[in-house]
Amino acid sequence: MPFSAYYLSAEGDLRRGLDEGELRDAFESRQGLLWVDICDTTEEDGEYLERNFGFHHLAIEDCVSPLVHSPKVDDFGDYLFIIVHGINYTSESDIVQTTELNLFLGPHFVVSAHNVPLYSVGSITKRVEEDGRPMRRGADFLAYAMIDALVDNVMPTIDRMSDIAEGIEEEVIHSPQRSTLEAILKLKRSTLRLHRVMAPQRETLNRLSRGEFPIISEKAHIFYRDIYDHVVRLEDLNQSLRDRADNALATQLSSVANRQNEIMKVLSIVAAIFLPLALLAGIYGMNFENMPELSWQWGYFAVLGFIGAVVVIAMMWFGARKWIKWLTWGRRRVSRLSRPFAVEPEKLIDYIGHIAKLPHL
Amino acid sequence: MPFSAYYLSAEGDLRRGLDEGELRDAFESRQGLLWVDICDTTEEDGEYLERNFGFHHLAIEDCVSPLVHSPKVDDFGDYLFIIVHGINYTSESDIVQTTELNLFLGPHFVVSAHNVPLYSVGSITKRVEEDGRPMRRGADFLAYAMIDALVDNVMPTIDRMSDIAEGIEEEVIHSPQRSTLEAILKLKRSTLRLHRVMAPQRETLNRLSRGEFPIISEKAHIFYRDIYDHVVRLEDLNQSLRDRADNALATQLSSVANRQNEIMKVLSIVAAIFLPLALLAGIYGMNFENMPELSWQWGYFAVLGFIGAVVVIAMMWFGARKWIKWLTWGRRRVSRLSRPFAVEPEKLIDYIGHIAKLPHL
Amino acid sequence: MPFSAYYLSAEGDLRRGLDEGELRDAFESRQGLLWVDICDTTEEDGEYLERNFGFHHLAIEDCVSPLVHSPKVDDFGDYLFIIVHGINYTSESDIVQTTELNLFLGPHFVVSAHNVPLYSVGSITKRVEEDGRPMRRGADFLAYAMIDALVDNVMPTIDRMSDIAEGIEEEVIHSPQRSTLEAILKLKRSTLRLHRVMAPQRETLNRLSRGEFPIISEKAHIFYRDIYDHVVRLEDLNQSLRDRADNALATQLSSVANRQNEIMKVLSIVAAIFLPLALLAGIYGMNFENMPELSWQWGYFAVLGFIGAVVVIAMMWFGARKWIKWLTWGRRRVSRLSRPFAVEPEKLIDYIGHIAKLPHL
Amino acid sequence: MPFSAYYLSAEGDLRRGLDEGELRDAFESRQGLLWVDICDTTEEDGEYLERNFGFHHLAIEDCVSPLVHSPKVDDFGDYLFIIVHGINYTSESDIVQTTELNLFLGPHFVVSAHNVPLYSVGSITKRVEEDGRPMRRGADFLAYAMIDALVDNVMPTIDRMSDIAEGIEEEVIHSPQRSTLEAILKLKRSTLRLHRVMAPQRETLNRLSRGEFPIISEKAHIFYRDIYDHVVRLEDLNQSLRDRADNALATQLSSVANRQNEIMKVLSIVAAIFLPLALLAGIYGMNFENMPELSWQWGYFAVLGFIGAVVVIAMMWFGARKWIKWLTWGRRRVSRLSRPFAVEPEKLIDYIGHIAKLPHL
Amino acid sequence: MPFSAYYLSAEGDLRRGLDEGELRDAFESRQGLLWVDICDTTEEDGEYLERNFGFHHLAIEDCVSPLVHSPKVDDFGDYLFIIVHGINYTSESDIVQTTELNLFLGPHFVVSAHNVPLYSVGSITKRVEEDGRPMRRGADFLAYAMIDALVDNVMPTIDRMSDIAEGIEEEVIHSPQRSTLEAILKLKRSTLRLHRVMAPQRETLNRLSRGEFPIISEKAHIFYRDIYDHVVRLEDLNQSLRDRADNALATQLSSVANRQNEIMKVLSIVAAIFLPLALLAGIYGMNFENMPELSWQWGYFAVLGFIGAVVVIAMMWFGARKWIKWLTWGRRRVSRLSRPFAVEPEKLIDYIGHIAKLPHL
Repeated sequence: MPFSAYYLSAEGDLRRGLDEGELRDAFESRQGLLWVDICDTTEEDGEYLERNFGFHHLAIEDCVSPLVHSPKVDDFGDYLFIIVHGINYTSESDIVQTTELNLFLGPHFVVSAHNVPLYSVGSITKRVEEDGRPMRRGADFLAYAMIDALVDNVMPTIDRMSDIAEGIEEEVIHSPQRSTLEAILKLKRSTLRLHRVMAPQRETLNRLSRGEFPIISEKAHIFYRDIYDHVVRLEDLNQSLRDRADNALATQLSSVANRQNEIMKVLSIVAAIFLPLALLAGIYGMNFENMPELSWQWGYFAVLGFIGAVVVIAMMWFGARKWIKWLTWGRRRVSRLSRPFAVEPEKLIDYIGHIAKLPHL
Repeated sequence: MPFSAYYLSAEGDLRRGLDEGELRDAFESRQGLLWVDICDTTEEDGEYLERNFGFHHLAIEDCVSPLVHSPKVDDFGDYLFIIVHGINYTSESDIVQTTELNLFLGPHFVVSAHNVPLYSVGSITKRVEEDGRPMRRGADFLAYAMIDALVDNVMPTIDRMSDIAEGIEEEVIHSPQRSTLEAILKLKRSTLRLHRVMAPQRETLNRLSRGEFPIISEKAHIFYRDIYDHVVRLEDLNQSLRDRADNALATQLSSVANRQNEIMKVLSIVAAIFLPLALLAGIYGMNFENMPELSWQWGYFAVLGFIGAVVVIAMMWFGARKWIKWLTWGRRRVSRLSRPFAVEPEKLIDYIGHIAKLPHL
Repeated sequence: MPFSAYYLSAEGDLRRGLDEGELRDAFESRQGLLWVDICDTTEEDGEYLERNFGFHHLAIEDCVSPLVHSPKVDDFGDYLFIIVHGINYTSESDIVQTTELNLFLGPHFVVSAHNVPLYSVGSITKRVEEDGRPMRRGADFLAYAMIDALVDNVMPTIDRMSDIAEGIEEEVIHSPQRSTLEAILKLKRSTLRLHRVMAPQRETLNRLSRGEFPIISEKAHIFYRDIYDHVVRLEDLNQSLRDRADNALATQLSSVANRQNEIMKVLSIVAAIFLPLALLAGIYGMNFENMPELSWQWGYFAVLGFIGAVVVIAMMWFGARKWIKWLTWGRRRVSRLSRPFAVEPEKLIDYIGHIAKLPHL
Repeated sequence: MPFSAYYLSAEGDLRRGLDEGELRDAFESRQGLLWVDICDTTEEDGEYLERNFGFHHLAIEDCVSPLVHSPKVDDFGDYLFIIVHGINYTSESDIVQTTELNLFLGPHFVVSAHNVPLYSVGSITKRVEEDGRPMRRGADFLAYAMIDALVDNVMPTIDRMSDIAEGIEEEVIHSPQRSTLEAILKLKRSTLRLHRVMAPQRETLNRLSRGEFPIISEKAHIFYRDIYDHVVRLEDLNQSLRDRADNALATQLSSVANRQNEIMKVLSIVAAIFLPLALLAGIYGMNFENMPELSWQWGYFAVLGFIGAVVVIAMMWFGARKWIKWLTWGRRRVSRLSRPFAVEPEKLIDYIGHIAKLPHL
Repeated sequence: MPFSAYYLSAEGDLRRGLDEGELRDAFESRQGLLWVDICDTTEEDGEYLERNFGFHHLAIEDCVSPLVHSPKVDDFGDYLFIIVHGINYTSESDIVQTTELNLFLGPHFVVSAHNVPLYSVGSITKRVEEDGRPMRRGADFLAYAMIDALVDNVMPTIDRMSDIAEGIEEEVIHSPQRSTLEAILKLKRSTLRLHRVMAPQRETLNRLSRGEFPIISEKAHIFYRDIYDHVVRLEDLNQSLRDRADNALATQLSSVANRQNEIMKVLSIVAAIFLPLALLAGIYGMNFENMPELSWQWGYFAVLGFIGAVVVIAMMWFGARKWIKWLTWGRRRVSRLSRPFAVEPEKLIDYIGHIAKLPHL
């Protein structure tokens, strides 16, 4: 419901807080630049827009409906209807949420509508309030400024997700836990959501930047192209986060299996050593009357010695099978495959030398 | 077999329950709008359609055959043959089923045929019965109304599936069971089925919305485009459900493996502590005559003390190896990676400040 | 080697069993329709075809070679060389096998060649023998009839595979065995084989149906398009079988891991209860002279009572950790996530009500 | 270095072993067909080619460089530079290696260069030495003959890999071992290598066969198309080997997990039966003075009987839980899902009967 | 900040170390070739470039911003703005890092900017200092030289990664450890990073090589095409490294599972043999008064003999179940599937013989 309206007349005067009549006059003058920003869109806003601007019913429906719509651009001849998405930083969810910004972009007006207050739009509003600068280069540049701010504000989230991925990769190798699994799942779902928004956003900005719509002047193309490049970069980074989450999930399983082997080896060694010895002790604990060894002078000490010898020999045997060594691998750091990408300078110089010799220069 | 026929004459009169002769007259007048809706299509319906409307044999075959056909649109010059799919809510299966709606769309007639009663068609019928409104804008808008209702009615199913995915993700981390596996499999199969229908449906609606067929008037294009957007959104949501099911399956395995580690650690610790001690007790249970320790005054208490000491020391050793701590991790909640996407406001403001400084506005 | 030749003259007479001279005359008359069907193709057949029909060497090589060739259509100007695949029901293998049907299709002749007797061709032959009907609409319709029969006869195999997939999905959750693995592998390989054949077959039929080749008359396009639709459906179903096999493989692993947890829990509980108790009994089985408890009146009964108490307490502790409950989960059926896709009627009606209110109709 | 030169003059005379002058004359006559074949290419060969034929520096660099280059075709106007790959059968590696064949193809000359002797080129050389036949149809046919031989010689390797895949699939189910893993990894890497070569090779041959280059005469197109078809088939088979290797890897894991369940069940049953009984024996081995049962006449026999009864009852209990049956499933062969694709003849006949009834023929 | 400027006048004189005025004159003369190389780009450099060269604000922003930008080429009419990536060998990270090289390429000038010293640019600078040769063929060739050196210098890194992959594959089968997991993760992330850079780099070079931009002369196309081929090769190799990392991850899991089976079998055999025997010894250790066997003369020896016999029989039974053999498989090398791709020469010769017989040559 709350909305603000600005009108920059052809003479460069900035008016604020227009009532419905003024707004209509400004709209129908087909001069200057009219900006209406609606926050927290309702059905009445829809009727208001239809009544005053005559926008197409379906566009207004997309605009006021609380459902999520993919980024897109629809050309209605006199104006474009653009949906772009940004991050909603007021969201309480621990999975990334995106919010829509709906834009009606005509040669002399911009109508922006969103369901939650948007930082990015707020920063533009503030500067318009100050000196009207973002409105002075025309409707296409005003829309550009809003979309650019929206897209750039996704970056801090990507950075945060990247930090989390770093933490997950560390944990997955060195202490895989159930909470790691949860963090991986959340990261993955967040990347999936971002991807679902970024993919059509990329297409939308591509269309906006390549001269398909006359409402966007030729001078603005390179600017829209610049946002397009940013979206591509965001999508790339997001895709790489998704790959890292996938890797982490697969690695967690392997890491847990490794750990289990460690545990099982301890158990097996213990059982293999002590079960037979317990049998031995059990045999000499039997109560048969005729057990000649029992009366031997050194029988007890022979058995003790045998038990001691078995323990020592078993240890050596397991050692020979590298199990004991295995038991300690957790602490060993194999350096053979570490720092993998250091190429020796000499090799590189030789390589470059080879190139320098090529005759084609 | 049961079918209903409506005819809206060029003068705007609505007639119902036409017999075969009237229907033929209406069809041949090439005026007004004739709508025939057939529920539970049989071979006789096929012959009826061929006799009265002269539709192509192959289209009728697709229409009456009980086999499932992918969404498509065939252009027969005078009319289009369209197959679209919706959800059949009367189905007893716990895997999502879709049902076909077959449409013959001409400039002055619509023939719709389906094997089960469809909610979406029913709602249109009801409103036609009331005031004939859905028929007043022409054949292409009547077809639009039916397809739109059909597509929109997929949404509650997607919502239900989304709830289930939420439940599965919870269960998979906190209590992975066999029934979770079953639920994952069913969810996955449902998304696969929906996908197989939605992908060609999207293509079909794309073709209907871009002016390829003159039977669909230019004014209707944006409306078909709107359904197209809905199908794209449904497919996106469905795809994301499928990704979530895949993740859940991979996570279940990891989660079960984690749980097994827990169990194995308990077992290993128990065995490693008590097997050696049992051997000790066994040794002093041997019946050798010459066992000097047996007659020692404090021998028994020394052994008891030793056993107690071993238990304590073993506990400490396992503690040092962090196993005991591990045993309890199930209850610990590591908060380091939680709430992952909260970006500190200051950081965001700085970031926006940086943007505001950019000279290009 | 065995082959049959039919000639339907321009006057509508059907001749059978033509010798080489007659066949040549018929071929060179460029009238009527000549059909030669060769079963179990050999090198001599190749020479025969080259001598009498002058087909291109490479086409004949593909035709007589025992190697498998992908479906394709080659345009030699005067005639088309078409390879399509069907199921060989005489095959003994338990992995789906496809067989080639090679067709030379000219304006006035069809030459079909295959290495094994084909049901589909057989059914056409039989009807030609009866009344010549499949030949009366021309060469392109004869070829259509054969390809259509071939493609439709893949359906029973898909149905059979679908039954098997159902069985596998059941087994994978409730009793995963080694033979289940084998069945999955075989199903997967069968779907892969079908896919390798269906993908180019789809492309081949697409080309045949879109008017690329003048030998196929315009009237026949819609018929070829119909086969194309069938191939698309078969490929869809096959793809879904493949997805189900993949899911089953991943689920089997998870299911086996779940089962192992069950087993390990039994083992761990048994060990954790009885190993310490055995130590206790062992302690009182030691033969030290000075063991005051041994002479206590109620020592034995105290120990017995302690053992009983430990068993009871341990059971309760494991119960508290939900392990005992776990042990029984195999039989429990969690109904929370079952019947997942039933949407409550009221919800649906509301939803439809919402649609009905939309002003655009 | 070693090279052979052949010149077939316009009159049909074949000359061998040309010196540099003769070769130059032949090249500059722009008549007949000159073929130079260089084996084991060196830098000097590069200079030789640049001096005598004036080929572009970059093409020569690709030709003499020991690095691997992807299959491609470069059009230099007067001549084409083609790289195709075949199998090097002299390679010692147990992973499939491919070798390059570099071809310079002009209207009146072919220069072929390769780093190792190639069987396929050798067979052409031999026939040229005999009667010059492969050179008589022109440069494009000579190049065709070499590429065709090269591509066809990949087939025996694919056959060998297919045998290995068969062996792996057998082993993976019935005796999964570490060496099976190794074989899978090697097979997978071989298919990946082949794929990396076959994919661009397919594109290269597609371009050569579709009339893009005037140096390749129209008559030769169908022949190049034929090689293209072979490459497509090879790639299909290779892709299917890769799928089988992937399946085998996933199955190995499941199979090993199944096997582990078997082992764990044996262990659990043994522990669950004998640990409690050992406790019982331990109890009656205690040395308390007041243990009334010890003096009972039949106490010992009662205990013996109890132990026997427990073993029998435990067996029955595990049997009831189907574990004993499980223990034996390794040998059982469940036939329910075997021979999966046999369709009963009656069903097929009915199905065909249904088709035959269709009115459209 | 540090930058070097070279000017090769139209007369062929090379001047170095130009001040701002000279540089401006050189730039505005629109003759000869001006090269400015900026290392460690700062905001001031951006202003400098805008002031003296008048480059577009957005291009300069991309150039000076410390964020990573994907490879791309923007056409500003008078000049191209190109971003390409190479490896930064001074990086300390053990995951592959790439660095940007920003190029402004006009008909008579090249401005290169990078944030760290680049080996590849350094080698060009050195040769320009010597004799100016890389500048003598024009701006497009100078840019080519830099991009070529940059791309070729990625090769040593790929070689190093390939060595690591080799080591990982060895370790994964013969001694899978936690550090192997870490190495796999790092290798995978490195390949992902390279891929993200190489994919757009490939597209960028494709555009530069196909004559889209008139600033790049026709003579230079084949040279840019050559870099394009190198990028394709690098991407292929990188993709194959990624596949190998994926395989290694999957194999590690299987390998660890195999190893665990080994361990579990040892444990199970030990338990199955010694637990029952310990029960036996325990039985005869009971203190019942009436245990007739105890007074038998040979009772003790019978029990001893029975224990020995059980051990022997158990060993044989496990042998019959192939477990003992299994225990040793670690050392066995199954040769059946090794050296998989050796095709017997005779088979190959026959195959070639078959080809030679084909009549089409």
